[in-house]
Amino acid sequence: METSLSAENLIPEKDTLLKAAEIIRPYAHITPVYTSHSIDDITGSHLYFKCENFQKVGAFKFRGACHAVFRLSDDEAAAGVATHSSGNHAQAVALSAKIRGIPAYIVMPENAPRIKVQAVKEYGADITFCAPTLNARETTLKQVVRETGATFIHPYNNPEVIAGQATAAMELLESVPDLDWIIAPVGGGGLLSGTALAARYFSPETEVFGAEPVRADDAYRSFHAGHLIQAEHPDTIADGLRTSLGNLTFTIIHHYVQDIFRVEEATIIRAMRMIWERMKLVIEPSAAVGPGALIEQNRIPAEIRIGIILSGGNVDLTQLPWNHA
Amino acid sequence: METSLSAENLIPEKDTLLKAAEIIRPYAHITPVYTSHSIDDITGSHLYFKCENFQKVGAFKFRGACHAVFRLSDDEAAAGVATHSSGNHAQAVALSAKIRGIPAYIVMPENAPRIKVQAVKEYGADITFCAPTLNARETTLKQVVRETGATFIHPYNNPEVIAGQATAAMELLESVPDLDWIIAPVGGGGLLSGTALAARYFSPETEVFGAEPVRADDAYRSFHAGHLIQAEHPDTIADGLRTSLGNLTFTIIHHYVQDIFRVEEATIIRAMRMIWERMKLVIEPSAAVGPGALIEQNRIPAEIRIGIILSGGNVDLTQLPWNHA
Repeated sequence: METSLSAENLIPEKDTLLKAAEIIRPYAHITPVYTSHSIDDITGSHLYFKCENFQKVGAFKFRGACHAVFRLSDDEAAAGVATHSSGNHAQAVALSAKIRGIPAYIVMPENAPRIKVQAVKEYGADITFCAPTLNARETTLKQVVRETGATFIHPYNNPEVIAGQATAAMELLESVPDLDWIIAPVGGGGLLSGTALAARYFSPETEVFGAEPVRADDAYRSFHAGHLIQAEHPDTIADGLRTSLGNLTFTIIHHYVQDIFRVEEATIIRAMRMIWERMKLVIEPSAAVGPGALIEQNRIPAEIRIGIILSGGNVDLTQLPWNHA
Repeated sequence: METSLSAENLIPEKDTLLKAAEIIRPYAHITPVYTSHSIDDITGSHLYFKCENFQKVGAFKFRGACHAVFRLSDDEAAAGVATHSSGNHAQAVALSAKIRGIPAYIVMPENAPRIKVQAVKEYGADITFCAPTLNARETTLKQVVRETGATFIHPYNNPEVIAGQATAAMELLESVPDLDWIIAPVGGGGLLSGTALAARYFSPETEVFGAEPVRADDAYRSFHAGHLIQAEHPDTIADGLRTSLGNLTFTIIHHYVQDIFRVEEATIIRAMRMIWERMKLVIEPSAAVGPGALIEQNRIPAEIRIGIILSGGNVDLTQLPWNHA
């Protein structure tokens, strides 16, 4: 269990989370928490939605990237930061680097959506394209790091990133102190492990659950097997959740998360539409998996108080799932 | 000018607006005000978006209906309230009546969208269907009022409704005190005339502008002609703005509004998409006409502070305009 032991040494402490909140405060939004009587009626519980779709770059990812970028020493920062991503993490790193005034090197697959490439470019990042395989992404990234001396910011398996993501649940617990549960979606596990740590340190009575598509249920299977299992051919509309856990996020989730809910595709779409129609919030499919779990599960105690992290709102408005149903 | 004189006697006073705010406080949401750096950059001004899409029933209409319903004496209220509408006003009257515990009689055209009929039914209102003409609606309404003794609540040409709608701008001016302009969309004119009165009474330096589709520009033409001109065959995606002004709303708008911006259909759609994508807010086409005016106009002074009332968020998610462009 060497991996697990070394991962345990990397679990962010309470003090690191408090410092993370301080470090990102000048740059990140304190996002609002919304409620909806009609969705409370549907689910039979009291729901508090933390709106990370309103966060900078449209997703919670800005918190972790911003914290990681601003934790660097001036010397480290001068060489810039690097990552590989075709999604929200790329924009988050690019914007954080822009704010700090340092270079950002982003490796993107050559088939990345034009709109996402454009967004990263607008933040002034240096983009290197590569073949659309994980292997090509990692090789290209290593090369970029070797050439530039930039610091690699992993999208989730990184203590600073996890501590940054934890600040969403810290804010939620501060504005709604006595939550019975918090539900966060789980892909690579940065948000879920940060949420679990926030609850453990600041509201130990609050139980934390993950929510994951059935079609990308590596976290569920890893959690119950007690060891890391990679997702095989994840194929879900929740594109932010196709990633598998890393050893650090797995260790935190295995220790501090109560359980993982698995949600069917049709329920994800139904939940997404419900939030758009009833709450007038644009959320992306990944953000609908938590609310979907509440629709699908019938083992949720009545009338409990549940915090839900709406993780992001970046979605192609011309490709909405209910237009193809 | 008898109409105009009698209308002038009906213009709500400052005190009526203050009382309206008090009356609706237990029932209506104080909606948030949002800003967007990226839209500020696009328009070259500082924008403050008052989010009435988050209001009860998903639109500002709840304010006016709620005020009118709760201003009734107990005797008047016992006989119930009535209106004809296929849109947000019907839901607003139905919900307000439900909260007060009195009957609501809603006359709807037999071709009204099923989803809107359903929403009104869910609030427990009594629906009477009629032929889809203004004449049939008015005749049927008169009959319903005669049979039930219910009080007719006009959707806009009614002082209590106007005073209720004014509370949106009152809240906006309270949270952002030194606005140079406020822009509100104009259909029947309830929101725009309420907004104009709120500015006049509580922030006289603030200029109020209306925003209207070119394809339903009766308010623009009436405003510049100095007398009421009915819209002929209004055909715009902004379905909430197809109505023409009434004599009371015209009188207030003619006195206290600075000017009316006219906006092309393509700009309305572009502005709607911009708000969805950049602010993650679901707004209806009518709510996008104000932001559209800012995109289209080039006679807006740089760097001024503008309040925008996002009037509502009720839209058919399967019929989004950019899917047909």
